[in-house]
Amino acid sequence: MRVTALAGGTGAAKLLRGLAACLPPEDLTVIGNTGDDTEVWGLHVSPDLDTVTYALAGRLDVERGWGLAGDTFRALEAMAGLGADTWFNLGDRDLATHLFRTRALRRRRPLSRITADVAQRLGVAARILPMSDDPVRTRIRTPDGWLGFQEYFVREKAQVEVLEVDYEGAADASPAPGVVPAIRDADLVLVCPSNPVTSVGPILAVPGIVEALGTARGVVVAVSPIVGGEAVSGPAGALMRARRLAVSPEGVATAYAPWLRALVLDRRDAPSAGALRARGLTPVLADIVMTDRRSEIALARRVLDARG
Amino acid sequence: MRVTALAGGTGAAKLLRGLAACLPPEDLTVIGNTGDDTEVWGLHVSPDLDTVTYALAGRLDVERGWGLAGDTFRALEAMAGLGADTWFNLGDRDLATHLFRTRALRRRRPLSRITADVAQRLGVAARILPMSDDPVRTRIRTPDGWLGFQEYFVREKAQVEVLEVDYEGAADASPAPGVVPAIRDADLVLVCPSNPVTSVGPILAVPGIVEALGTARGVVVAVSPIVGGEAVSGPAGALMRARRLAVSPEGVATAYAPWLRALVLDRRDAPSAGALRARGLTPVLADIVMTDRRSEIALARRVLDARG
Repeated sequence: MRVTALAGGTGAAKLLRGLAACLPPEDLTVIGNTGDDTEVWGLHVSPDLDTVTYALAGRLDVERGWGLAGDTFRALEAMAGLGADTWFNLGDRDLATHLFRTRALRRRRPLSRITADVAQRLGVAARILPMSDDPVRTRIRTPDGWLGFQEYFVREKAQVEVLEVDYEGAADASPAPGVVPAIRDADLVLVCPSNPVTSVGPILAVPGIVEALGTARGVVVAVSPIVGGEAVSGPAGALMRARRLAVSPEGVATAYAPWLRALVLDRRDAPSAGALRARGLTPVLADIVMTDRRSEIALARRVLDARG
Repeated sequence: MRVTALAGGTGAAKLLRGLAACLPPEDLTVIGNTGDDTEVWGLHVSPDLDTVTYALAGRLDVERGWGLAGDTFRALEAMAGLGADTWFNLGDRDLATHLFRTRALRRRRPLSRITADVAQRLGVAARILPMSDDPVRTRIRTPDGWLGFQEYFVREKAQVEVLEVDYEGAADASPAPGVVPAIRDADLVLVCPSNPVTSVGPILAVPGIVEALGTARGVVVAVSPIVGGEAVSGPAGALMRARRLAVSPEGVATAYAPWLRALVLDRRDAPSAGALRARGLTPVLADIVMTDRRSEIALARRVLDARG
């Protein structure tokens, strides 16, 4: 069964690890968000692609949800000594990924090729594709003006009011090679339990991707990132509200209409099942908060079963 | 007494540490070689400037002669894992210097400003100037073609035959701001015990610098990098031979004619004193092999006395 997953970072990483335990790796394609890519110390950082890659390589720092397990931060300390901004943490081993990517981009290699190279060299057999080789940048409008996503999320710790969300460059972007066929031809398309606005939203904003989802041959299933009216992690709640989406499985269904077919929601949100059914969606109840490897695999199995 | 020193890397670093112990730091100006600057992993590395800066900050790894004491190499290991070239060693803390410099250069800040910023932030009170803000690159012609200096020196470990040495870009370069007045107005100009061909040679190749040396108000003194017919360290011997210079104090004197006034040479080379005197130079005998802090300071005092 070929599975194509639309993925943000931390939220997606656990489920992808679970999926990788259930599928031959060559049957898994991940389409990663690059809307939160940023420049740190002159380096091109792709936080979501890296989180997915490190997770599938078995090297993610699962506790933190980003970076490499056991990494050190000597370069960061030295950057602080030189007076550079250090609100975005880059570990010493992690730096190699950004150095490698930045040099290749300057040599005009497309991000999709570089992402494949990094994954291969870290021993990842699944296919990881950026949503686009073109720059798309998620921006957040706050009462004090526009912020880049990482400025909002990391520097301001998502503690400022969100008035508007924009995907700069999306209208002019094309899906990366392989993205549209991977969606169209998969047996199951999975939207990971990532933030619908800033993790999955930028992917959907690339022209051609929503169309591919609407004509996908396989079933399109999402896992809710919301449980009991709250995001499982991160600022999804505030961002959904800013987009006038209910912070609930129904709000997630709205974000993914009209192409979503099934939504995996937490057992605690069972009361939402009827409303989802009324909108033509198949609700699938599960324990969606992944706290360990076992629960990652259990949820992955539940998702694969949702194919029905 | 204001001292201006022309400096390469490792050879110069020890004597500069000695000088810094003998002079108020604001009286010391170092003019550093940038002919061996190179690009590593897309970063601009200035090995000689960094060696001098780290030495004066008291943070040089004196054993190795380059990099920061106690540095780690996690990023390098990770770069090897990604299949990148790793013959040029960059430590994790050291990487911060190169990231900082590279970003500032991309923002069109001149190397001289960046060098001053790095020195200041590492607590160095002496003034460190690159010879030029313009790119000058030392190249080595071997039987297999031209190599960049670091390819010759680090990758090939200086084990290939040298046919020719070239300072690419030198003819079009200008001395960095402050270089010419620092030479002209110093009470003593010191040519450090660095390789005359690839450490001091590129500095002299920048138009205007030899002229400044020829009209310097103070005495111009060099310390020989050669003892007993051999370089104290590194490939100076092979490079001097390639330039048809004798590997001896006399050969050093030839490289620095006609503007050199005094040459500090090792007591073991006392027989050369007469020949130097015959060429109008003052020979100053000293123990020039610096093996510890004490010998660095002793040689520095001998140099300062050479002002006569």
